[in-house]
Amino acid sequence: MLFFTQCFGAVLDLIHLRFQHYKAKRVFSAAGQLVCVVNPTHSLKHASNRCAVAQTSTEQSSLHPHHPHEAVHDPQLIPCTCPLFSCQWEGHLEVVVSHLRQTHSINILHGAEIVFLATDMHLPAPTDWIIIHSCLGHQFLLVLRKQEKYEGHPQFFATMMLIGTPTQADNFTYRLELNRNQRRLKWEATPRSVLECIDSVISDGDCLVLNTSLAQLFSDNGSLAIGIAITSSKVHTAEVEM
Amino acid sequence: MLFFTQCFGAVLDLIHLRFQHYKAKRVFSAAGQLVCVVNPTHSLKHASNRCAVAQTSTEQSSLHPHHPHEAVHDPQLIPCTCPLFSCQWEGHLEVVVSHLRQTHSINILHGAEIVFLATDMHLPAPTDWIIIHSCLGHQFLLVLRKQEKYEGHPQFFATMMLIGTPTQADNFTYRLELNRNQRRLKWEATPRSVLECIDSVISDGDCLVLNTSLAQLFSDNGSLAIGIAITSSKVHTAEVEM
Repeated sequence: MLFFTQCFGAVLDLIHLRFQHYKAKRVFSAAGQLVCVVNPTHSLKHASNRCAVAQTSTEQSSLHPHHPHEAVHDPQLIPCTCPLFSCQWEGHLEVVVSHLRQTHSINILHGAEIVFLATDMHLPAPTDWIIIHSCLGHQFLLVLRKQEKYEGHPQFFATMMLIGTPTQADNFTYRLELNRNQRRLKWEATPRSVLECIDSVISDGDCLVLNTSLAQLFSDNGSLAIGIAITSSKVHTAEVEM
Repeated sequence: MLFFTQCFGAVLDLIHLRFQHYKAKRVFSAAGQLVCVVNPTHSLKHASNRCAVAQTSTEQSSLHPHHPHEAVHDPQLIPCTCPLFSCQWEGHLEVVVSHLRQTHSINILHGAEIVFLATDMHLPAPTDWIIIHSCLGHQFLLVLRKQEKYEGHPQFFATMMLIGTPTQADNFTYRLELNRNQRRLKWEATPRSVLECIDSVISDGDCLVLNTSLAQLFSDNGSLAIGIAITSSKVHTAEVEM
């Protein structure tokens, strides 16, 4: 009986140690989370109708995807314009990242979970904060935009776009999280493809939307920290089912 | 040695059974989650300046609480107006729930986690959907309001208010969750007190905000399901630390 009690005690100790190890590991990974300080790009005057046609097709494809780009056999040869509105560059999907890095000096950050720290939130609209986020073998474009959808009322819009085709984008889920002043806001969605028009995503408000006063509550000293995580949809489904 | 192995096996079986029991319990409680169908109240024309003074004090108190109501010794004797804007009722905190039930036919729902199903989302603004949510020994008012903050652009605002003092409200955290069409939006915050002005919370946008197109993506057949959970702040802090 004494032996049994000792065995039981030893097993409980093992379980406890395992739990402590797991907890410590989580704290460590949280502390070691990558923080990327993102300065605003130059204020951009948005073109009025560059995406007029694309917008309609994007609205439809958000729920009932039918991707004309998929007809091209090699995704890398798909024609692609620069996702930044002020830029008239046109090329292929294969080279859009090098264009963004070289012409617009956009940084690449690696890791499944990162913190995007946007500075100078007070700058007047329109202003963009942009990084490329590399993980799970793909590259994603995170765009935070300050824009006056209603005149005199600037709002912040954050969304994530896969540098790939819409079909590839359907395999992922991204999460944006704000957490400060006893408030927490989480947005989870499937990323759009960079081939779609980012302006239609923002004008539809099908993204994380913040008004100025809420952005102030979430920001610290003029900077807004957005936690970003990307998962492949299969992993995500498994998590939801748990 | 054989005895030790058997003991170890038995303990593992016990742990496995305990886990299965916990999992089954969670599934059961999820399946048995209360769903409350909430019909809209009559469209209300909002008074213009009833809360003009209260609004300023609420803005300040959201971050630096200083609650004049706390000076009254018995919270139940605190003067209180009806939180519905169209109503001119004035009384005490003690009787506001019976006023809401009797005069406005607002339902009470019990349980820590419920689903609020708002019907007829297409109705023109301004429209309110309201229930009283009773849990953790307190009563909370959930208000979903369709309102045109910018003319011609109706938006949906959802917030939770404790039927109690601001100091009591500080002890809780509420969570509102929308989940549909591969999108998930979560809002967590400390509830405001029903003694504060609900209109200032909404005009500040310090609540869950949805534009019409996003509300359509989250709604099903004209109804919007919002998952609601309330925790006491101590429990919440422990969860965050885990």
